[in-house]
Amino acid sequence: MKEPKKSGGAVKAAPFKVAIAGLGTVGAGVLKVLEKNAAEIAARAGRPIVVTAVAARNRGKDRGVSLDGLAWYDDPVEMARSADADAVVELIGGANGPAKAMVEAALDARRAVVTANKALLAHHGAALAARAESHDAVLAFEAAVAGGIPIVKGLREGLAANRIEQVVGILNGTCNYILTVMRETGRDFDDVLAEAQSLGYAEADPSFDIDGVDAAHKLAILTSLAFGTAVDFAHVHVEGIRHVSAQDIAYADELGYRIKLLAIARRTEAGIEQRVHPCMVSKASPIASVDGVYNAVMVEGDAVGQVAFRGRGAGEGPTASAVVADLIDIAAGRGGTPPFGVPTTAQAALVPAPMGDHFGSYYVRLMVVDKPGVFAAIATALGEENVSMESVLQHGRHPDGPVAVVLTIHETTEGAFMRALERMRTVEGVLDTPRAIRIETV
Amino acid sequence: MKEPKKSGGAVKAAPFKVAIAGLGTVGAGVLKVLEKNAAEIAARAGRPIVVTAVAARNRGKDRGVSLDGLAWYDDPVEMARSADADAVVELIGGANGPAKAMVEAALDARRAVVTANKALLAHHGAALAARAESHDAVLAFEAAVAGGIPIVKGLREGLAANRIEQVVGILNGTCNYILTVMRETGRDFDDVLAEAQSLGYAEADPSFDIDGVDAAHKLAILTSLAFGTAVDFAHVHVEGIRHVSAQDIAYADELGYRIKLLAIARRTEAGIEQRVHPCMVSKASPIASVDGVYNAVMVEGDAVGQVAFRGRGAGEGPTASAVVADLIDIAAGRGGTPPFGVPTTAQAALVPAPMGDHFGSYYVRLMVVDKPGVFAAIATALGEENVSMESVLQHGRHPDGPVAVVLTIHETTEGAFMRALERMRTVEGVLDTPRAIRIETV
Repeated sequence: MKEPKKSGGAVKAAPFKVAIAGLGTVGAGVLKVLEKNAAEIAARAGRPIVVTAVAARNRGKDRGVSLDGLAWYDDPVEMARSADADAVVELIGGANGPAKAMVEAALDARRAVVTANKALLAHHGAALAARAESHDAVLAFEAAVAGGIPIVKGLREGLAANRIEQVVGILNGTCNYILTVMRETGRDFDDVLAEAQSLGYAEADPSFDIDGVDAAHKLAILTSLAFGTAVDFAHVHVEGIRHVSAQDIAYADELGYRIKLLAIARRTEAGIEQRVHPCMVSKASPIASVDGVYNAVMVEGDAVGQVAFRGRGAGEGPTASAVVADLIDIAAGRGGTPPFGVPTTAQAALVPAPMGDHFGSYYVRLMVVDKPGVFAAIATALGEENVSMESVLQHGRHPDGPVAVVLTIHETTEGAFMRALERMRTVEGVLDTPRAIRIETV
Repeated sequence: MKEPKKSGGAVKAAPFKVAIAGLGTVGAGVLKVLEKNAAEIAARAGRPIVVTAVAARNRGKDRGVSLDGLAWYDDPVEMARSADADAVVELIGGANGPAKAMVEAALDARRAVVTANKALLAHHGAALAARAESHDAVLAFEAAVAGGIPIVKGLREGLAANRIEQVVGILNGTCNYILTVMRETGRDFDDVLAEAQSLGYAEADPSFDIDGVDAAHKLAILTSLAFGTAVDFAHVHVEGIRHVSAQDIAYADELGYRIKLLAIARRTEAGIEQRVHPCMVSKASPIASVDGVYNAVMVEGDAVGQVAFRGRGAGEGPTASAVVADLIDIAAGRGGTPPFGVPTTAQAALVPAPMGDHFGSYYVRLMVVDKPGVFAAIATALGEENVSMESVLQHGRHPDGPVAVVLTIHETTEGAFMRALERMRTVEGVLDTPRAIRIETV
């Protein structure tokens, strides 16, 4: 019998075939990366990864990549069911509609699914994971959270030895970009948002981003991975950045803080906190210097301590990097892990910590009439809720006119703070609605 | 036929059995993590992970963990061959001797091996990986680089879609701690080293750490993972931090830099650079603020851009976190990847870029006699090698006495710079040996 000829390292295994639905920026990026880095990818996957089929709405559009030789599907569900593919990539987006239908169809056909769709996973992650497990199919979603940062793998596998205590992330590049430019230029929110839209850093309808919904979707996924609980988007407390003013950013700077939209999942005695809202963080914290479109995730584990990840959270290249990493995992035979790290049958139900039990410090900005007695009434309002001030800031005087007063509040429960805030709002001489921002130690 | 009773999520699969050689700080830490987080680990691994055997030198020593019921081996090689175990953990250390012998014995017995031993992998990684592959055995080593940071997995899997251009790391906590304290206190190297030794942050014989060897071991591993080349420790250019003075640190600060011991692997036209040496990096760079015992790794990939990882690089908890993550991978069936990401048969040989071809900027500190003509002679020495100055710093005057002059040098080749440095050394009026530190843009 003849010895098989040594290949000298060339990959001889059968190609791993992929069908892609959605050929926007990310879909085109996946095609480009698979083509450009074909040799490296084949070496790491143990076999070539080739695209065999695509589904999109507009066949004629120029995407900067060749679609020659690929089977074309108008219907992604049809492609998910019948394409000649080992894995199906869902890049359509949206929590329902064709994205959900095609993922379900692919899993039911026992095909591996790779998706970048955080809305889908936030709303239906638990059910889709159970569906994948029952069909022994892979459901992978590295690209759904923090773009090119391998945080899904990091939490699910890299830090798997730990009891996770906390995950804190900057998960929305649009918000982080807007807050960064506001700080650097002193300009106000609406102005910077408009510019971000014209530059393509914010959508025409920016509400998903700036109202914190996108970050909340991603947080719900990270929470499940971190704590072994079923994805529970309904219990994420969400606030966006619309109310963050240039004034707040300037005061934050004066107090030694930066304002960031943080997504926080934390194990507490009352249950698991999931919250997305603007935060003041110390300038000395590493997360404070994560600027522009960068994302970051900091994980606290009982054995490892704090581990931080930073990288680009969106865009063609970073998202394609994550999608293709998932494909390589599956092609290499590493895809057999339950989607959220532990089988859905072993997941604990998430016990949400009531927001009123949250324990933390606060910043409050008030517009008040600069006259005797107003400040005493504010202090009384706080005292009546057993809430105490840590610092007071007032610049200049404006006798009998409006003047801004900034308070920082010692650690207390959110419930007590909110009652104190409501009392302050009704103090005579307090103009406008007081603005509060949570202060976080990260 | 009766339906099997649903377990409600409890893990019923057969335990994954582990034998551990070396019960120092890390070995005891692994035992503690496996015990403390047993439930989480079993859920993530799909089965309980239990220790069945241990090997160490001193049976009676109190390690703060119970060894009851564990088989005891005096000889780790014997344990590797015959223990009742699915995986063997090597925590003995050292590039040769019993560590190497037991890893080889375990692989030859087709047992999975987990090791934290960077010296072993730097010197024998290519051969051991080939041995593992030929026996279809797992060789895992997340703990060998950057402690609890999941950078091995990050490079091998998380960023696998990318053509990696560069990896830059702070990989030695002892050096980073010493440089951080030197900067914060203005104290000199010997003084801070002695303190680090008394605090347990530096070994009694600190040379492996402070001479850069430990960081170089880790870099050689990262290089292989990043570029798909065989581990090639012999071609790592290594310099330690013994010559970094309080004076250099103060000048760096004045010039807007921090001094860090960086480990750099970079793809260049001349081949792959692997180098470990003190560097000046801009204070604005994220890596500049990685202080104390923290490690960090920044990876540049063509699709993902820059991704950074930061965490504790050593110690009981972080290292145990990484060892146990590897065990979970293997128990969960994710261990089948070639140790360095691509099979050794597919690895390219590393083409080392000659250090003389390195292109970069430099800091030079000279002690010179403060008299006319000396500076002109220095400038001439530079000019004769076509090397040009970017800035000159001299504080105060000391006519006819010694005075420090600090130059920064525009980008040039290392060869030209070294020739210019040698010329400067022989200029009349230049006292002592000029001290040079490379300036890096990261």
